[in-house]
This record gives sequence, C-alpha cells and structure tokens, in this order.
Amino acid sequence: MTTGLDPLIRLLSRLPGLGPRSARRLALYLATHRDDVLDPLVRVLGETARAVRRCSTCGNLDTADPCAICADPRRDRATLCVVADVAGLWALERAAAHHGTYQVLGGVLSALDGIGPDDLAIGDLLGRIEADSVGEVIFALPSTVDGQTTAHYLAERLAGRGVAMSGLARGVPVGGDLDYLDDGTLIAALNDRRRM
Amino acid sequence: MTTGLDPLIRLLSRLPGLGPRSARRLALYLATHRDDVLDPLVRVLGETARAVRRCSTCGNLDTADPCAICADPRRDRATLCVVADVAGLWALERAAAHHGTYQVLGGVLSALDGIGPDDLAIGDLLGRIEADSVGEVIFALPSTVDGQTTAHYLAERLAGRGVAMSGLARGVPVGGDLDYLDDGTLIAALNDRRRM
Repeated sequence: MTTGLDPLIRLLSRLPGLGPRSARRLALYLATHRDDVLDPLVRVLGETARAVRRCSTCGNLDTADPCAICADPRRDRATLCVVADVAGLWALERAAAHHGTYQVLGGVLSALDGIGPDDLAIGDLLGRIEADSVGEVIFALPSTVDGQTTAHYLAERLAGRGVAMSGLARGVPVGGDLDYLDDGTLIAALNDRRRM
Repeated sequence: MTTGLDPLIRLLSRLPGLGPRSARRLALYLATHRDDVLDPLVRVLGETARAVRRCSTCGNLDTADPCAICADPRRDRATLCVVADVAGLWALERAAAHHGTYQVLGGVLSALDGIGPDDLAIGDLLGRIEADSVGEVIFALPSTVDGQTTAHYLAERLAGRGVAMSGLARGVPVGGDLDYLDDGTLIAALNDRRRM
C-alpha cells in the first residue's frame, strides 16, 4: 500500500531506535498533529541544521564555535577530560561531574570496525595538552575492551609529556544491587575496594 | 547544561515512543548526520506538512482528496469497513484483507476519556451507507471493551437500514501458542470453534 506518508515513514524507520512499526506510528502522529507538533518540528530541525556545528577546539556540538564549555572562563583548562563521543560529554555535564574542559575523540580504537589511531582526534588532543598546559588528562572512555584499549594506547602516546593521567573508577553503581551486576564489575569493585 | 540542541531534544522527547534519553540520542544522531539524514528529514517533513490531508470521504490520510482507496474504481463500495483510526486502516491494507472501502471513526466511545457519539464520524458513516448503497458494514474495531461497546452502539444505530453487519472474528492468532494467550482470547476461540 502506498500513501502520501511513505517517504516520511521510510526516512523515520532508518533513525536509531525506530523500527518500521514505530516509524509508522510516529508518521501518523505527526500527520495528525500538524500545528502543535509537525510544524514546530520542521522549524526546529531546520534551525538545528543551520546553526549546530562542531566546536573546532574540543569536538562538542553547539551553536557557537568555540562551544559554551570551551568559551567559559571558569572552566579549568589544566584538567582535560577525554571522551569517546558527544553523548559521553553530555552525560558528564548533566552530572556536573567535571569542571575542566573536554576533548571528544570521535570514537574508540576498534580492530573489528577498522578504526585506527588516524580516525580519532589524537592530534587535537596532543595540541590541546601543549596549548592549554594541561596538568591532568582524565580518560572517561567506555568501560569496554575497545574503550580500555584506547585509554592504554593514549596513555602510552602521552607518556613522558609530564601530564598526570587517570581513568574513571570502576565499581558498584550508586543504588546498584550486587545480584544484578556482572562478574567483571564485581571483580573490579572487590579489587579496588576502599578502606573505611 | 544547555546546548544548541536543547529545543530539538525537548520537541523530540514529546513524540510517542521517545523518552528523554532516546530523544537526546536521536538529536545527536541527526546533528552528526546532517547531509544524509537531517536535511532529507527537514525536506520530507515539510512536504508532508504541506501535502498530507484527511480524505473528506473516509477520513484516511493521503496527499489526494479523495484518497487513493476512495478514488480506486476497483474498490467494492457496497462493503464498508469501519475502523477506529488510520492506523487500523493501514493494518488492514498491509494485509490486503479488505477489498471494499473504509470509514475512519476517529476513535471509539469512551466514558473514561469523555468520548461520546458526537466526537466520532457517525454522521459520515450514515451518509456513506446512504450514498454508496452499502450492503454490508464490517466493524473492524479494537478488541477492547470500548471498541466492542462502540460496535454494539453502531449496530443499534444502523438497525432497520437494511444493511448486513459483522465484526472481526476473535480467536487464536496465526502462529499463536495457546500458552501465551490471555483467557479472554481462549474463551472466545473455544466458543467460536469451527467444525472440521
């Protein structure tokens, strides 16, 4: 069956998290809520396409370049947090966990996906360390094999430059029930146990 | 934290099936896939907003009025299928289950949601039966209390007009395992059992 909504359904079903059924449901919702949802969405998506760009300093997405974080004079430039992607940066910002600046790598090393050092913003990272007289680099990379491989690779590349390096602590999440945790997390939590 | 993507994230998180986390993920995906996803989406959404309208005959959504189904001369106008919404119409069309025409009610009667007969396209339905000399009305309404109440209400309204009326059969879905079916479906399937 073809309807006037088919092009939209095809596009929506290619978005992350949407399958054919949810794309149909969303297209119907949009077509039946034109004034209050569809028209505002067209406007805001258009504005986003025009305005949002990558920060040429850290790789964050924002309407300004440098981004609001890089432009903020209260940010501690000597403490640089390395994240794999913008989603990770936003997660740390939501938690107000980091008061320094960031460097977005654009991914992690992955033999399987063919991502090597040249595909990551490692040159930018080295330049930042130089330009901002960075004293500590915090690797806030995914707690996966690829993420940890990337952290170790970067630690080797940065060795001898006089910067302290650290990674996020591993352990039991706040509110986490031991019964639901995987073995790797439990082992890490036990090995890194804190004296009380 | 505020970023240039906040207006888009707010809008996306109000769409059905999307929460705050999936809206953030989607906004990031769109902002990082501008040429291949975001720009086409803006274009197609804009075209949808301009082109898609309700069929003034049956209530379907299409770029043409009357819609492709109402305009199709091969459709049997004497067999009218009553559906609650466009999603139901599309489901029947995907299955190529019905070769007549449709009437979209725009919902079902619901005391809880305050939806009464005046909120549904019952006048349109009565007009269609008259104008198209309809011989059979098939109620393809949700198999819920409200859906079945609506079917019974419509059957009473249509009584004495000389039209045959029917509802969708209830029973075990094709490929359905009895162990996973609810009691209501099992009772219906047993009561409506077919001779072999």
